[in-house]
Amino acid sequence: MDLKRLSILGVGLLGGSIGLAARSKLSDCHIVGYGHRRETLTRAQEIGAIHEAADNLGDAVKDADLIVLCTPVLLFGEVLKGIAGSLKPEAIVTDVGSTKRSVVELAGRLLPAHASFVGSHPMAGSEKRGVEFARTDLFENALCILTPTDSSDAQAVTAVEEFWRLLGMRTCRMTPADHDAALADVSHLPHAVAAALVNMQRPEAMRLSGKGFLDATRIAGGDGGLWRDIFLDNADNVRASIARLRRALDEFEGLIRARDGEKLRAWLDAAAARREELVRERLRDEA
Amino acid sequence: MDLKRLSILGVGLLGGSIGLAARSKLSDCHIVGYGHRRETLTRAQEIGAIHEAADNLGDAVKDADLIVLCTPVLLFGEVLKGIAGSLKPEAIVTDVGSTKRSVVELAGRLLPAHASFVGSHPMAGSEKRGVEFARTDLFENALCILTPTDSSDAQAVTAVEEFWRLLGMRTCRMTPADHDAALADVSHLPHAVAAALVNMQRPEAMRLSGKGFLDATRIAGGDGGLWRDIFLDNADNVRASIARLRRALDEFEGLIRARDGEKLRAWLDAAAARREELVRERLRDEA
Repeated sequence: MDLKRLSILGVGLLGGSIGLAARSKLSDCHIVGYGHRRETLTRAQEIGAIHEAADNLGDAVKDADLIVLCTPVLLFGEVLKGIAGSLKPEAIVTDVGSTKRSVVELAGRLLPAHASFVGSHPMAGSEKRGVEFARTDLFENALCILTPTDSSDAQAVTAVEEFWRLLGMRTCRMTPADHDAALADVSHLPHAVAAALVNMQRPEAMRLSGKGFLDATRIAGGDGGLWRDIFLDNADNVRASIARLRRALDEFEGLIRARDGEKLRAWLDAAAARREELVRERLRDEA
Repeated sequence: MDLKRLSILGVGLLGGSIGLAARSKLSDCHIVGYGHRRETLTRAQEIGAIHEAADNLGDAVKDADLIVLCTPVLLFGEVLKGIAGSLKPEAIVTDVGSTKRSVVELAGRLLPAHASFVGSHPMAGSEKRGVEFARTDLFENALCILTPTDSSDAQAVTAVEEFWRLLGMRTCRMTPADHDAALADVSHLPHAVAAALVNMQRPEAMRLSGKGFLDATRIAGGDGGLWRDIFLDNADNVRASIARLRRALDEFEGLIRARDGEKLRAWLDAAAARREELVRERLRDEA
């Protein structure tokens, strides 16, 4: 893809970091940012994440080769409606949302035939939010999941893949449905559980918590609005994930009720070993 | 307490760190270590955690002013039987176990009237185990919970409190029952949940996990044998904690099923705020 004009819709932590990273890799690409708060756009310009701030969605995407949706997930419908009439022929649209079925469905319905949509989930971020935390290297070595469908344009998929790789990411492809089910298990459920672990505590117990509790609940410190949207958008999968966690807890409870030390040890060791293997995998990925 | 002879039974991460810290603070205290593996004792001597290695429990505690049980929790009964006949008058015995009801009950039954037992839970450690990870500063600024009972000797309680403070710890007192119930909520349950979160994963989902999953499950990497003992010893409380987590998850599930974005946001924000307050508290404690 000859990327001469990049449009970033929503210039927070992710949008800002995309701007910084794209600017460092593409010297002749003009980057336009759009957001509903003027001061965020000004700040994004000051730190060099965007060249230009647009006042409305139409101007923001006009002539853009690639448009990246970085607003909250539940605003995607509105944003897609707002840009549909201003996309140039062969414009490619992608996003950074944590759920993929809904945006893929919306894009298929709302965007014109002369533009292409490819869903993306760059798995980078932090519990911090806002363009002031944007970093050029936020995406370095992290994984980006692309969710093309049977009706996706093959060249557009390749172009979006190349874009994330340019920003330093590893990429893989999944269907939107597989993505949402897998992420419910490894990301959305752990977040809900972390929040539940905090909310269930009595103050007199919580003041005794150590480093383990703080680690286990760190993700509960994330942005409530962002996570509300994820949970509402992926509710069916999240409920299925909760059901599977309940079954794992049933198994554990059965072992301590039966005082089966041997099987309990095996259950605990299996978790430790699987996690250890995952840590090794991550170290290999990042090497 | 005039501590001239300290006996450490079980010289792993905690026992070794107690030796190192006590040696750095008490120049004229002789430290004897006991353990079932000769090479561990040799290593403990090499790193300076103990002055002397004892071959049997009787020799290990002979003439000791303070004895600290650092073996796995489920071995405490055996160890207490092994030392009961060799304790000098007014010897003080304590422990580092993560559960307190059982050891307090055992000590009351097995130790002679001329010795005193005071339960301790120094909340320091790491997912690492073994004397090779022992550190002089492991206890610095961490909390030690003492669990005296109505029949505890007041002077012995004060002496044990002073010992942990000498090692740099903050201290507080609770009943053994309150301790075990609170720790089930803030420590044992989070560990079980972390292991369940790993064990429930399908491989194709787990390979997509990010930093949040690794943080949320870090405690599942702990020693399986140690944790098996904790879960078996505190099974009733752990089951009650699981029941309360299930109710918190019920509440969450109810909110996403009802698509109640406002209450869901409030539930998530409450967790984030309570955790943030806890982090601030910890920073104050450690300042």
